[in-house]
Amino acid sequence: MSDTIISPLAPKVRPDIAPVAGVTLAAGSAEVRYRGRTDVMLARLTPGSSIAGVFTRSSTRAAPVLWDQEILAESRGASPDDKPLVIIVNSGNANAFTGRAGEESVRAVAAAVARTVGTDERAVYQASTGVIGERLPHDRIEAVLGALADALSPDAWHEAAAAIMTTDTFPKLASATTELDGKAVTISGFTKGSGMIAPDMATMLGFVFTDAAIAPEALQTMLHESAQGSFNAITVDSDTSTSDTVLLAATGKAGNALVTDASDPAIAGFRAALNDVMRDLAHQIVRDGEGATKFIQIDVTGAESVAAAHAIALSIANSPLVKTAFAGEDPNWGRIVMAVGKSGEAADRDKLTIRFGDILVAENGWVAETYREEDGAAYMKGAELVVTVDVGVGTGRSTVWTCDLTHRYIEINADYRS
Amino acid sequence: MSDTIISPLAPKVRPDIAPVAGVTLAAGSAEVRYRGRTDVMLARLTPGSSIAGVFTRSSTRAAPVLWDQEILAESRGASPDDKPLVIIVNSGNANAFTGRAGEESVRAVAAAVARTVGTDERAVYQASTGVIGERLPHDRIEAVLGALADALSPDAWHEAAAAIMTTDTFPKLASATTELDGKAVTISGFTKGSGMIAPDMATMLGFVFTDAAIAPEALQTMLHESAQGSFNAITVDSDTSTSDTVLLAATGKAGNALVTDASDPAIAGFRAALNDVMRDLAHQIVRDGEGATKFIQIDVTGAESVAAAHAIALSIANSPLVKTAFAGEDPNWGRIVMAVGKSGEAADRDKLTIRFGDILVAENGWVAETYREEDGAAYMKGAELVVTVDVGVGTGRSTVWTCDLTHRYIEINADYRS
Repeated sequence: MSDTIISPLAPKVRPDIAPVAGVTLAAGSAEVRYRGRTDVMLARLTPGSSIAGVFTRSSTRAAPVLWDQEILAESRGASPDDKPLVIIVNSGNANAFTGRAGEESVRAVAAAVARTVGTDERAVYQASTGVIGERLPHDRIEAVLGALADALSPDAWHEAAAAIMTTDTFPKLASATTELDGKAVTISGFTKGSGMIAPDMATMLGFVFTDAAIAPEALQTMLHESAQGSFNAITVDSDTSTSDTVLLAATGKAGNALVTDASDPAIAGFRAALNDVMRDLAHQIVRDGEGATKFIQIDVTGAESVAAAHAIALSIANSPLVKTAFAGEDPNWGRIVMAVGKSGEAADRDKLTIRFGDILVAENGWVAETYREEDGAAYMKGAELVVTVDVGVGTGRSTVWTCDLTHRYIEINADYRS
Repeated sequence: MSDTIISPLAPKVRPDIAPVAGVTLAAGSAEVRYRGRTDVMLARLTPGSSIAGVFTRSSTRAAPVLWDQEILAESRGASPDDKPLVIIVNSGNANAFTGRAGEESVRAVAAAVARTVGTDERAVYQASTGVIGERLPHDRIEAVLGALADALSPDAWHEAAAAIMTTDTFPKLASATTELDGKAVTISGFTKGSGMIAPDMATMLGFVFTDAAIAPEALQTMLHESAQGSFNAITVDSDTSTSDTVLLAATGKAGNALVTDASDPAIAGFRAALNDVMRDLAHQIVRDGEGATKFIQIDVTGAESVAAAHAIALSIANSPLVKTAFAGEDPNWGRIVMAVGKSGEAADRDKLTIRFGDILVAENGWVAETYREEDGAAYMKGAELVVTVDVGVGTGRSTVWTCDLTHRYIEINADYRS
């Protein structure tokens, strides 16, 4: 929090966020770790809501992640009868690698929230982000729950998004409206994630809400698939947090006939809007990547499969040499060839095609005859870059987004000491 | 080459390199790209020598790598009858991603070397390191071959090691003597690798020679196994070159009975010496890692298998967050927990043990009761660090070596433009 420089890639306009019928939010200051700012967010979802989640696959998952996975599996994403679902999030302490004490904190918070809001303990979803290895002072969170419950409002989106920030340099929100079954429906959400500052860990948290009526299983399918093209398609520095959590909740207040099949063609418009919101939020994380000065899209085509294309795109996006070349505005396509080669996925060296924006850089295993280094260098001066790589062996394609690797990343992660 | 700062981790003493009977070397200036320095190395191995190789697994391998793999497979590591084996290496141009022209250059060099030295074209092993995507001006190499052949000497080890450097800040050599079948045998070699400077690519090349008599198949087995604990157990920045090549040649001049079985207990001493030389050379690459100020050993124990331990160790060693924490002398064990978790390998969060040197940092899923942050911070000030992680699920163990990630890395890779 010693850093108040806002990322140069931040959105220039504060987004308007449409309220979602059935969702109320509040933010407060529990002083879990930070002083002089909010650090707890409470969201209440009307009884009957559905919820879905995707989580880090880390084998050292934090206590709240394990809790959410457990109660989500148990409830299959349904609300308890006539009781609300609740999401409570704190920043400042990740409650990660805290042993048995971590589980005790999670249970204590669940009990206190359930009591305060009037629901079951196992309807209380949780996320924590911040310092790792320190016991969560859950009593401080409990102490503000009454005030939070009293403050719940349909309009506190920006407040909620700000409360969950750690090293983020701006709050991240997105909203869309669309139509489903002839009814207007809204999708609004917020996210956090940026990178880390000793001793905090980066954590990607995302909370997305809609008033559409969607059955839990269909909601989970939609979230899973949407995450593939958004939160699972971004990388700042290849490091995965122990706490990554994205929750999607549907209140059913829009009045559409309940959606039970995620593949129903009638909901294509809704899914596209959901994907837009999810992608927008995920992009904002990259735009707030530690030290980022370039927002970079990597399109890989011609791979053996979608999974192979994704692996190649991530190999390029995570390569320190590629990322430093972008930072240096160096059209160093040789490093992209290297990153394709090291991915472990099939590629035909002699059919490889590389483009920077519309500029054909390399084809047929060598630099393109038409390519001029000065064109590549001029293109690299932009803040928003697209690199397209066709690897020449199939039809698999994937897109990922990343940022450059700059001195500022080292400053943030090496130069501070807790 | 614009950089003449020698790594602070470089060996303080120039190593003595014992000649290897049957090996002669020469270095020269072909001005492939660099001016005012040597850039070509020729090694001649007496007729009857065996040779073995390990190579990058990149799918975008450079032309000389493909050539070496082809002639090695064809000859099964044997010399032609009564003719020498030859190794020719140039720096300044990697002959990578050069399409058909790259293959033509390789064949032209092979023919010219074979003519000059008096051997078969397909006994001429090659390696190239330097700029990628530019046609190798092989005529410049051919022009100096006569002089190189005339200059071949049993003592030109330091000259050979210097000629293959690109962005290395010091030449890297190692040597050992041992006994085999009652005969004194020597193992000497040199390597290069450091990182990259636009538009050069990092390439790890290694050439190791012995006068022991070892049959090709046994030699290949020894090289493969030795590389696992040396060249395949180091990482500077996780980026794999298109040109990585390590060759091991045995001249048979020591007079021992031919070794035909790599697992023969009688050669354990020789293999230990070989491993020492290989590990020493590999460590020197890490010590010359771009911007490195810390030499870091990562020991992982308690994994499901050796392969799992290796993957976890590499996950830690390649994590930008772990590497920047080391650069900042920050005992940030939470980042190590994160890196274990993201490896994809099994680990028991609640049995995880982490040590910095002899300091117990974390155990049983939480910070150790005896751990004091100031002890960790003091330990981090050293230039040679050992991190031990037991993941608590099995008996697999592995060690890898890496360096920290500093501003200098960004400077070298982002701040220069070709």
